[in-house]
Amino acid sequence: MRDPGTGTEYSSHSKRVINKDGSFNVKKTGLSPSTRNAYQSLIKMTWARFFLVTFAFLAFVNAVFALLYMLIGIEQLGETESRNLLDQFLYACYFSFQTFTTVGYGIYHPMGHLANIVATVESILGWMCFAIVTGILYGRFSKPSARLMYSEKALMAPYRNGLSSLQFRIANMRNSMLMEMEATVLLVMVDKTQRSWKREFIRLHLEREYILFFPLTWTIVHPIDEKSPFYQKTQKDMEDMDAELLIRIKGYDDTFAQTVHSRYSYKCAEIIWGAKYTPAFDTDSNGDIQLFFDQIHEYERVNPG
Amino acid sequence: MRDPGTGTEYSSHSKRVINKDGSFNVKKTGLSPSTRNAYQSLIKMTWARFFLVTFAFLAFVNAVFALLYMLIGIEQLGETESRNLLDQFLYACYFSFQTFTTVGYGIYHPMGHLANIVATVESILGWMCFAIVTGILYGRFSKPSARLMYSEKALMAPYRNGLSSLQFRIANMRNSMLMEMEATVLLVMVDKTQRSWKREFIRLHLEREYILFFPLTWTIVHPIDEKSPFYQKTQKDMEDMDAELLIRIKGYDDTFAQTVHSRYSYKCAEIIWGAKYTPAFDTDSNGDIQLFFDQIHEYERVNPG
Amino acid sequence: MRDPGTGTEYSSHSKRVINKDGSFNVKKTGLSPSTRNAYQSLIKMTWARFFLVTFAFLAFVNAVFALLYMLIGIEQLGETESRNLLDQFLYACYFSFQTFTTVGYGIYHPMGHLANIVATVESILGWMCFAIVTGILYGRFSKPSARLMYSEKALMAPYRNGLSSLQFRIANMRNSMLMEMEATVLLVMVDKTQRSWKREFIRLHLEREYILFFPLTWTIVHPIDEKSPFYQKTQKDMEDMDAELLIRIKGYDDTFAQTVHSRYSYKCAEIIWGAKYTPAFDTDSNGDIQLFFDQIHEYERVNPG
Amino acid sequence: MRDPGTGTEYSSHSKRVINKDGSFNVKKTGLSPSTRNAYQSLIKMTWARFFLVTFAFLAFVNAVFALLYMLIGIEQLGETESRNLLDQFLYACYFSFQTFTTVGYGIYHPMGHLANIVATVESILGWMCFAIVTGILYGRFSKPSARLMYSEKALMAPYRNGLSSLQFRIANMRNSMLMEMEATVLLVMVDKTQRSWKREFIRLHLEREYILFFPLTWTIVHPIDEKSPFYQKTQKDMEDMDAELLIRIKGYDDTFAQTVHSRYSYKCAEIIWGAKYTPAFDTDSNGDIQLFFDQIHEYERVNPG
Repeated sequence: MRDPGTGTEYSSHSKRVINKDGSFNVKKTGLSPSTRNAYQSLIKMTWARFFLVTFAFLAFVNAVFALLYMLIGIEQLGETESRNLLDQFLYACYFSFQTFTTVGYGIYHPMGHLANIVATVESILGWMCFAIVTGILYGRFSKPSARLMYSEKALMAPYRNGLSSLQFRIANMRNSMLMEMEATVLLVMVDKTQRSWKREFIRLHLEREYILFFPLTWTIVHPIDEKSPFYQKTQKDMEDMDAELLIRIKGYDDTFAQTVHSRYSYKCAEIIWGAKYTPAFDTDSNGDIQLFFDQIHEYERVNPG
Repeated sequence: MRDPGTGTEYSSHSKRVINKDGSFNVKKTGLSPSTRNAYQSLIKMTWARFFLVTFAFLAFVNAVFALLYMLIGIEQLGETESRNLLDQFLYACYFSFQTFTTVGYGIYHPMGHLANIVATVESILGWMCFAIVTGILYGRFSKPSARLMYSEKALMAPYRNGLSSLQFRIANMRNSMLMEMEATVLLVMVDKTQRSWKREFIRLHLEREYILFFPLTWTIVHPIDEKSPFYQKTQKDMEDMDAELLIRIKGYDDTFAQTVHSRYSYKCAEIIWGAKYTPAFDTDSNGDIQLFFDQIHEYERVNPG
Repeated sequence: MRDPGTGTEYSSHSKRVINKDGSFNVKKTGLSPSTRNAYQSLIKMTWARFFLVTFAFLAFVNAVFALLYMLIGIEQLGETESRNLLDQFLYACYFSFQTFTTVGYGIYHPMGHLANIVATVESILGWMCFAIVTGILYGRFSKPSARLMYSEKALMAPYRNGLSSLQFRIANMRNSMLMEMEATVLLVMVDKTQRSWKREFIRLHLEREYILFFPLTWTIVHPIDEKSPFYQKTQKDMEDMDAELLIRIKGYDDTFAQTVHSRYSYKCAEIIWGAKYTPAFDTDSNGDIQLFFDQIHEYERVNPG
Repeated sequence: MRDPGTGTEYSSHSKRVINKDGSFNVKKTGLSPSTRNAYQSLIKMTWARFFLVTFAFLAFVNAVFALLYMLIGIEQLGETESRNLLDQFLYACYFSFQTFTTVGYGIYHPMGHLANIVATVESILGWMCFAIVTGILYGRFSKPSARLMYSEKALMAPYRNGLSSLQFRIANMRNSMLMEMEATVLLVMVDKTQRSWKREFIRLHLEREYILFFPLTWTIVHPIDEKSPFYQKTQKDMEDMDAELLIRIKGYDDTFAQTVHSRYSYKCAEIIWGAKYTPAFDTDSNGDIQLFFDQIHEYERVNPG
């Protein structure tokens, strides 16, 4: 079935549609930044970046206030000894932070109206910023997300009654429990039969689209029968059509207590023709089942059915 | 299908049902304010308004406490010099804010029971208010919402086998990824055949009501066949019936990790008869797909099929 | 259809199953309190009760610490004048609150190890309590809930082709928008045909179980045809069977951005036989639609169809 | 139906699949800790453990800063008397906590650049840590979860028309209301007919998979007819097949205002052949329904139908 939401005409060969991190490979232009959602960016950025941004912001705000206190005169803060500007700036900063974080030792304290007003404003600002940072931090923590390990390679493996099947394997890297898992697989390929190439999106039917419990691994299987676009296609055909598998996995995570989503994609070069996965778990002597993540990717060569 | 939830008799011509901001065009009366939800209002108001309300509240509360401290006598705060009332009020305010924000430099500090009790109450109040503001701020941040760009005009465009079709186009203005998009379109029109005009709600069948991925644009298409209320209707007929399209788009946003909703409406005057959209994206030299938001609205004239 | 989850044998006449506030009319015994969820109680209790509990807790904790400081000796807090015990206790309280809320003016401050250690513990406790209160407050705010107005009376109203129908009417009291509304109505009645009375739960089929938009009122209609348990029953029959309507309404609230639920119940005495609702909204001169909540309950007598 | 997500070959007899606490009985290896989600662990650990971790963290951080202040020289904090190292360390700790919690009495306060800079850093750190702890605490509170009581034993009870049925009983231990309950039961058994034993997952059809309201108890019933894997099986057969019932209950909790999930499992040894449950609730003299949790597990012997 063609998907109007993403179908488009191409004059040139294009990159993968879904990046390995699950994001879409699309550049958006013609939007004023104002339409971007600051909160969303702060939620999505890496922790490193987030802390950098936060501290840069704190440093900037406090420097500004420190300068204000210097203009007012830092003797108004009860600091009278420091002579040179750097010292004055530093002491103003210390006071500024003591106000912003509401530590307020009191050794430095505003005197006179100007200093008091600026300090009052800063303390309220700190008060608000804190509330905002708390909210953003919680938003970052609680954002539910799946952490699935996908087998590095998808396999073209033998299947019952002499057919072959397209397979890939996933496992849950979190300690949480995943349940009610749903898998959807789209095949994207460029139809070069027409003069103007068209990108086609075809949904692949799966041997099983749903499992209730997901404690171990799940091998998603697309049988290559008459209905499959891979039917009687060679590896070469697929490459010519610039084929890509778009995968969407969805399930209920019992720690987040919410439904989590995961996206992934395999390009032709990541499909091994004629191989099957080797088990990635075992039952140990105590009867405990063990799952080995380092074996998720492992497969063995077979001659395709 | 008639929708009893919204169907009603009209004595006069009425305004649009859904405003451009997605809100319903309905005035509610006969409710005591107490039944309004303060939290919801604080969540829904603009940021400008929210900060105004917050600061007004802070100013008011602190002014009240400042007056209390003046009644008690601000020498009880360790401030003895200030003679005139304004000075006294200002210093009382500074102290009040130092207490409310828990900065508490200590240069001013309560002495005697009265001052201490009032200051204690204020510090607890500040403590609570902070918790409340934090909660509301997070509520504002995390409220999931879609930010879709709708084409300014809906189009009456040519469709396969000589039919025409009603179309409009959307794109996701956020950086987030939208998936599992669902579209529902209702036609509202006033049935003037009876003496007492009735507003009818008819659900329009769509060429496609669902797409899994939504990286670019989605053109929602209602084919105008026998089943369509637009079938063999002229632009004039529609205007006479005061026709309006109610649109509801729903999808999963991967940043909010929740389902987001969007509403929109097209009045007759916003439907162009005999036009089709021009592509709003392209693949650049590197093979990256680019989406141009400033071209979402663009269409070209065609003679209707 | 009988509902094993709630069906039961009765030796006596019983009260309504769902209270007007939507709660189940069931007493639970044989559970240790430990299995109760403190957070849930704090979320569900009224605001008045919540603040009472919070302040009682603050008062208690601070009193305990105040006593500790007295044992240590409040001269260790830098307070040396106060002679009598009450003064000492009060000053200890002031200091305790200054520590708990982290105001920390410093005029009183711990000296010596014991005082310092207790004060440190208290400041950390205050720090934690604050985080907890913030969390609970947000939980209270953000708990999504519907606020629907139900017509005081359900009506036995005339219906097309000479049938009658059971009706009740709802409207959204919030400023939020409700969409995708679903209604479910169960009839509970005591089957007295057997010796041991059984409570039966029968789901009533509705003329319409779903509406997409809900800007005004929605009249939920159960047509009384052959399939209906009310078919050819008199008001008396219903009363004998101790009949009760259990209602569950569900919809998406765009402010909470979540699905909200509402429960309600009508006992026989709240069903008017032979009446129909009068419109509760109108279009004013500007073409604005107005909804009058004070008219939701209004109906007029008619002779049943 | 075989479930590829969990099916596996066994060389040895294995433990139960779902532990009594609902967790999967699987060990995961081959993952670097970095892939574990710290937030999830902090959410899932017991309250005792959580507070232990928090306080250990606070103690550690403050000890580190205390040492820094000692290196700088605690006379820089305004503390000049304390001679011996322990005293110095303790006073440094007090100051550190006063800074971290932003109490900041001021009796000790940083002097000189080094002390000021370290104190500033600590106050910001405290500020951030507080935001983080607040977020985690809220996450712990608000994590929706079901608290169902399952009857200790599942029963093989008589059923209509001479069949027997497998039953277990649940009740809601929370004060919250549960609605729209769904039950799913899988039978896990080891198929020993092949040489390499296979674990089979078979979904059991239930007399009723859904109930709308759940005020009292719900007895989930699997009729043992031709379609049932228990059909004409003896207790011994089941034990040989190492049978286990996996149960998943799902419902809407009106306090969390979210769907909550519960898992449970019965091993063969926990199934009583030939018994039926005795009622666990009654209507008292006032007509109030009472639910007795201590009677949920009670059953009486009957000769199997």
